[in-house]
Amino acid sequence: MTSTSNFKIAILGAGTVGGGVARILLEQSEALGGRAARTLELAGIVDLFPAKCAASHGIDRSLFCGDGDELTPAQAKAETDRLLADPEIDLVVETIGGSGDFIVGLTRSVLESGKHLVTANKALLAKHGQGLFKAAAENRKSIGFEAAVCGAIPIIKGIHECFTGDEIISISGIFNGTSNYIMSKMEAEGQDFATALAAAQEKGYAEADPSLDINGGDAGHKLTILLRMVFGLDLAFDDLEVAGIEAIDSDDVGFADEMHGTVKLICYGERRGDDVFAAVGPAIVKRSNLLSKIDGATNAVRLQNRYSDENVLIGQGAGSLETGSAIVSDIVFIARYGDAALRPPHRSSCKLRPLRELELPCNIVFETADMPGITGIVCTALGRQNINIDTVSHNRHMRDNALFAIATMPCTMAQVQAAVRSIQGEHPNVLLSEPRVMPILV
Amino acid sequence: MTSTSNFKIAILGAGTVGGGVARILLEQSEALGGRAARTLELAGIVDLFPAKCAASHGIDRSLFCGDGDELTPAQAKAETDRLLADPEIDLVVETIGGSGDFIVGLTRSVLESGKHLVTANKALLAKHGQGLFKAAAENRKSIGFEAAVCGAIPIIKGIHECFTGDEIISISGIFNGTSNYIMSKMEAEGQDFATALAAAQEKGYAEADPSLDINGGDAGHKLTILLRMVFGLDLAFDDLEVAGIEAIDSDDVGFADEMHGTVKLICYGERRGDDVFAAVGPAIVKRSNLLSKIDGATNAVRLQNRYSDENVLIGQGAGSLETGSAIVSDIVFIARYGDAALRPPHRSSCKLRPLRELELPCNIVFETADMPGITGIVCTALGRQNINIDTVSHNRHMRDNALFAIATMPCTMAQVQAAVRSIQGEHPNVLLSEPRVMPILV
Repeated sequence: MTSTSNFKIAILGAGTVGGGVARILLEQSEALGGRAARTLELAGIVDLFPAKCAASHGIDRSLFCGDGDELTPAQAKAETDRLLADPEIDLVVETIGGSGDFIVGLTRSVLESGKHLVTANKALLAKHGQGLFKAAAENRKSIGFEAAVCGAIPIIKGIHECFTGDEIISISGIFNGTSNYIMSKMEAEGQDFATALAAAQEKGYAEADPSLDINGGDAGHKLTILLRMVFGLDLAFDDLEVAGIEAIDSDDVGFADEMHGTVKLICYGERRGDDVFAAVGPAIVKRSNLLSKIDGATNAVRLQNRYSDENVLIGQGAGSLETGSAIVSDIVFIARYGDAALRPPHRSSCKLRPLRELELPCNIVFETADMPGITGIVCTALGRQNINIDTVSHNRHMRDNALFAIATMPCTMAQVQAAVRSIQGEHPNVLLSEPRVMPILV
Repeated sequence: MTSTSNFKIAILGAGTVGGGVARILLEQSEALGGRAARTLELAGIVDLFPAKCAASHGIDRSLFCGDGDELTPAQAKAETDRLLADPEIDLVVETIGGSGDFIVGLTRSVLESGKHLVTANKALLAKHGQGLFKAAAENRKSIGFEAAVCGAIPIIKGIHECFTGDEIISISGIFNGTSNYIMSKMEAEGQDFATALAAAQEKGYAEADPSLDINGGDAGHKLTILLRMVFGLDLAFDDLEVAGIEAIDSDDVGFADEMHGTVKLICYGERRGDDVFAAVGPAIVKRSNLLSKIDGATNAVRLQNRYSDENVLIGQGAGSLETGSAIVSDIVFIARYGDAALRPPHRSSCKLRPLRELELPCNIVFETADMPGITGIVCTALGRQNINIDTVSHNRHMRDNALFAIATMPCTMAQVQAAVRSIQGEHPNVLLSEPRVMPILV
């Protein structure tokens, strides 16, 4: 197993994550060599701003390719081409980011040059993973992507190498730290959404443009990758139903609390026969479910398994060294196991279906006229759709209108919508707005 | 990587765990073959009671070696010898249990016969692991032991394969489900120890003789195994300081609750330079620490890492299919990776030191005479030993005596004991019993 030649690594892009990778490779050289059973050698780094990157990560400038403080795009391309043409380079780390033509072409070139690829790029894999994994298989090279899903949580190797004696029935979790930080603030401190978002931005969790974090897109990229791996779905990112937390308000948080739950942005996928029901969106998580206890910017993944019940993995989903450590673990794995680490994409006959078609308990918030008889009208309409009611919340009577929530036993969204339509048809003045529905996880 | 020959497995002992392994191998044959990249074949099972095992696990009797409903020990030995002599058998699962000469000799024979060994036997590995891992290295065979530490939680592969891009600074956790069930009952329902233990026995969590569960021995076996792996300690089980939960009472639980914590049986090991401070014993876990949120018979492992902060893995620590799934994951891994999965024992220059020598915040419960001036005497004595006081609890005045707790800032047990000795020396009538000390985990 032990090879006498060094395992040579190139890094493309030495920003937050790539710089962290370089630092760990340099600081932990001896320990990593022991784990990989061969010496890992950082052979070269390409970045447009080598001087700045070297300074900010404390890396020797000589490890960066090219001369001067900055490289032109043409110079960076020439240096990249030189590394890809170098037969001694075994593995390339892509930490540039983006999911456009440039990065698709570049990562494909890495594989076609006969080098393993390690990346933290969830958007790239969610949108173009099918083609990239095909290219990897054709070139008999590995793609390491532990860092692309929940950062330092080892869910990718968990699924590939650890939970292999079981059958995963469902996967759920908190895959976006920014939105979880916001929801935690709204719950613990009663902040409204805008205030909590501003706090997340001040803490550096949310980008200046936080839309992918709060609209569920970032979480959806990660769920797309896991649904392919776990259930063998031939899934494009756009196939997945994704909702964010922008519309969550303090009433939602309050109603969740009344039923011993908390609102979280949840990724969910569950297999029933050949159907996989999946979505990203806000859900009420009961306190009996460990995902309810994940606060702040932390991520968590919960597996419900056929034989071993539940497993929950918790850790940091972002950060320079956190994400860097996940990338380095991929490098160690590929260096150690070589061809044995190759995995053809997992394909099954399973079909994706939207989560709203799965029978789940749900919570429906009704804004109605505030007068006697309303609860009866609403509950009767639900009963006529065969929806069994669990609890009716404390009603917020507000003179002009009333706000209350009904938690149901498992039902589909179609049943709920039929009930709402019947109320709207038969009692046109009762519902003052479209009821809001969230699934409940127990 | 794909081999045309089947990977053949023998199981020695088809009780709770071995029967679960056989069932999963048979039920999941196709999926497991895909993951291992070769067909896994259950070639034979040896058990003294084949008819009973076959019936209770729903396994065909023909998979068991020998004839009749029961085998004599001599017959079982002959069947075992035959399997070990069979060059086609690749891997042997030991699910007999025990840690005496018989099982030490048998497992050594497995390795010396040129077969991989997979076992859930934590007592065997804690007491005789050093010799067994040496035998494995000499014979170039793997020992799979995922199931020996926290059942279905993939902490062994987690350390070997997943957290390899980081440096583990400390490992802590709840490694014994029975004792955690008891502590959860005492906390949530105010039960005393004896009542909670009886409830655990009724639920089937505790054995008729629960001593290894409640005295910390079972948890200590698991910590011994992890300390060797993570920190490279050349550690014998008897080297580790181990305490149980037998002496915990409702006052301890109450004082913990007052400081927003809960009492748990905690395994702990932390590296500082070349010292590894470790022990098993009751500790107060603050609610800010995720381990405080693990209720019932569930297990959890928390890693504090240099680069990726904390990782927590939660799952089921026991059970037929739960433990069985962990064993099967080892079989898949060894079948897939072959020689590349071989690992020489990790040895470092680190030395074991008892946890009480590490400066940790701690909680001290004092039973004293109930009269004015006591708190001053106690706090003065602590201050003279340079112990900084965090909080003094609400005092339970009970006429004849008083009970109160002092939570300290980080200090060693030697400092605490010096303070106690000075109180006993200078004020012989103040302390009515030896103060009880527990570390506090934040």
